[in-house]
Order: sequence, then C-alpha cells, then structure tokens
Amino acid sequence: MLPRTYDAQTCSLARALEIVGERWTLLILRDVFLGVRRFDDFQARLDVSRTVLAGRLQRLVEEGILSRERYQERPDRYEYVLTRKGLDLWPAINALRAWGDVYETPNGPPRLFVHEPCGTPIEAVAYCPHCATVVAPEHVLTSRGPGYRPPAGSRRRPPPQPTHLLEPSV
Amino acid sequence: MLPRTYDAQTCSLARALEIVGERWTLLILRDVFLGVRRFDDFQARLDVSRTVLAGRLQRLVEEGILSRERYQERPDRYEYVLTRKGLDLWPAINALRAWGDVYETPNGPPRLFVHEPCGTPIEAVAYCPHCATVVAPEHVLTSRGPGYRPPAGSRRRPPPQPTHLLEPSV
Repeated sequence: MLPRTYDAQTCSLARALEIVGERWTLLILRDVFLGVRRFDDFQARLDVSRTVLAGRLQRLVEEGILSRERYQERPDRYEYVLTRKGLDLWPAINALRAWGDVYETPNGPPRLFVHEPCGTPIEAVAYCPHCATVVAPEHVLTSRGPGYRPPAGSRRRPPPQPTHLLEPSV
Repeated sequence: MLPRTYDAQTCSLARALEIVGERWTLLILRDVFLGVRRFDDFQARLDVSRTVLAGRLQRLVEEGILSRERYQERPDRYEYVLTRKGLDLWPAINALRAWGDVYETPNGPPRLFVHEPCGTPIEAVAYCPHCATVVAPEHVLTSRGPGYRPPAGSRRRPPPQPTHLLEPSV
C-alpha cells in the first residue's frame, strides 16, 4: 500500500494504514504475536525476500512498533519484540483474523485462538468500557474531534451535528 | 497490497488482507460506515481516480462486502450498501482507527466515536463472550485448527501443543 500515503485524508484509519498497510507488515506482526523474534525465523515462515523483510522490520523499529534487542554477543545477534505501541495492534490484527476466519476459510480456521481460562474462541468487537458491552455500529455517534482539519481551500463552517454510523449522509 | 496474494500463507489474516488490503479499500469502507453510498460522493471525499474507485467498488461487490442497489430509474442510479459480510468488518476498521487515534494523531483524534446511550468513546478489543471480558494476548492460547494445511513438501507431524501468544517460539 505504501510508499504512497493518504495525505488528503484527515483520518486515523488512513494514518494507521500508512504504517501497517504496507504489504507483509501485518503478517510480520502476526508472527511476532505468535512468538517469532528472529530474522531467519521470519524469513523461513514468510517466504519473502531478505531485502523486503529487512526493510519492513526497520520501518517497524523506526515507528516504535518493534524494539530490536541484542540477545547474543560475538557475534552480535538481535531479536525483535513488540513495544506497547506494537502490542496495541492486537485488537486490529485479531479483528482482521476473525473476519477472515468467518468468511474466507471454507475448511475452517487454520488456527484457533481461545481464552485460556475457559477455552472459548476469542472474538473481535467494538466495546464500551463504561457499559461493559459490545457496540454495534448502529449505536455509535460520530462527530468532529479536536484533530479535525477542514480540506484545503474550504470555507470555515460550524461543525455538523453528531450522526449515527450507517445513517445515509452527503 | 494486491493484486499480489499471499499464496503460501495458510492464514485467515492473509486471506482478509488479500481482499481488504488493497490500497483505498478500507477508506472506501470507512466512508460507507460514515453514511456515504454514491459513487460521486466517494470520489469527492477520497480524491482518488474514478477508474481506481470503480475497480475497488466492483471488487467489493464481487466479494459480497457491498451490495449495489438501484435507487432511481431513467436514468438508472445506484448506491452501495454494506452486506452482513461488510458490516462484520466494523471491528477491524474500528480497531485500526482506534490505534491511529492513540498513536498517530498529535492534535487529537480528527473524529470522535462514542457509544450513543452513555457518550463514552468506543474502544476496540479482543473479547471473550463466555467471560464477557476483554482479552489481552497473554491470555490467549493458540493451536492448529481444522483448516490447517502443512507447507508443501513437509513431513506429516503431530500437532504441537497449544501455545500462549507472545511466548517465544521456533
């Protein structure tokens, strides 16, 4: 998806995709969640060129998603571990995985993910921490936030009223 | 990300990315959740060529994520609405949005999403429906599922024990 960006889009989704939307990046991060930490292990699992893999890992380190840590000296060897910012991609990776499991795996999921204490398959949801409830898009109100910037050249206008997701607009 | 696929990856995340990982596709779907339904409205908001937009919309219809519905005759005009499969991308889109809000919007989120009854900002989580609790990756056990296929040419081996996410492997 990169190196092209979504400059004209004042949108957190666009910003996220500029970083994790690069081809292979989410699959590398999937492998880190599965316990892979070392370059040669990523390479063996991903069947991707060493150049591409090295570039993706470097970008993830630069973006503060992975940390490169030395685990051996003489010769120096490094492994990659998730930072807090990287760990916080867990809901996104889990959500794409869960959707693929439902719609794109005719033989059933290739891998199961269950809650350890009870063995129940993990779901991916939007969640209200106040009500401790799963939230469907119909129950979400959206409005401009503090980081809103009007498109270049547009006239200043008062913010519109909050709208429900999925309500026809424009 | 497409037209290249991730053929060698027996993985629901890879399958999902083959469909929604195409450049612009998730931003089109974001707009559908925000209430946009018509070609010219997508085009005005996305600043993308009509050819690319038409191709992405057609693919989303073919994949059963959007449905193309006539809303006017003579001349015929169509709008795009989310199917159940498309609506089920809400957790994934919300999760990428939420991560971008935290890490990539120095001026604060450009758009707010709150739970209508209580006004609380919506979060994105992995969730156990049995325990009704948010699940961190450390509390997830993963194992081979029914759709698992060994890499071509590999010897048949018994399935390994379930492992915790983030536990070093390989």
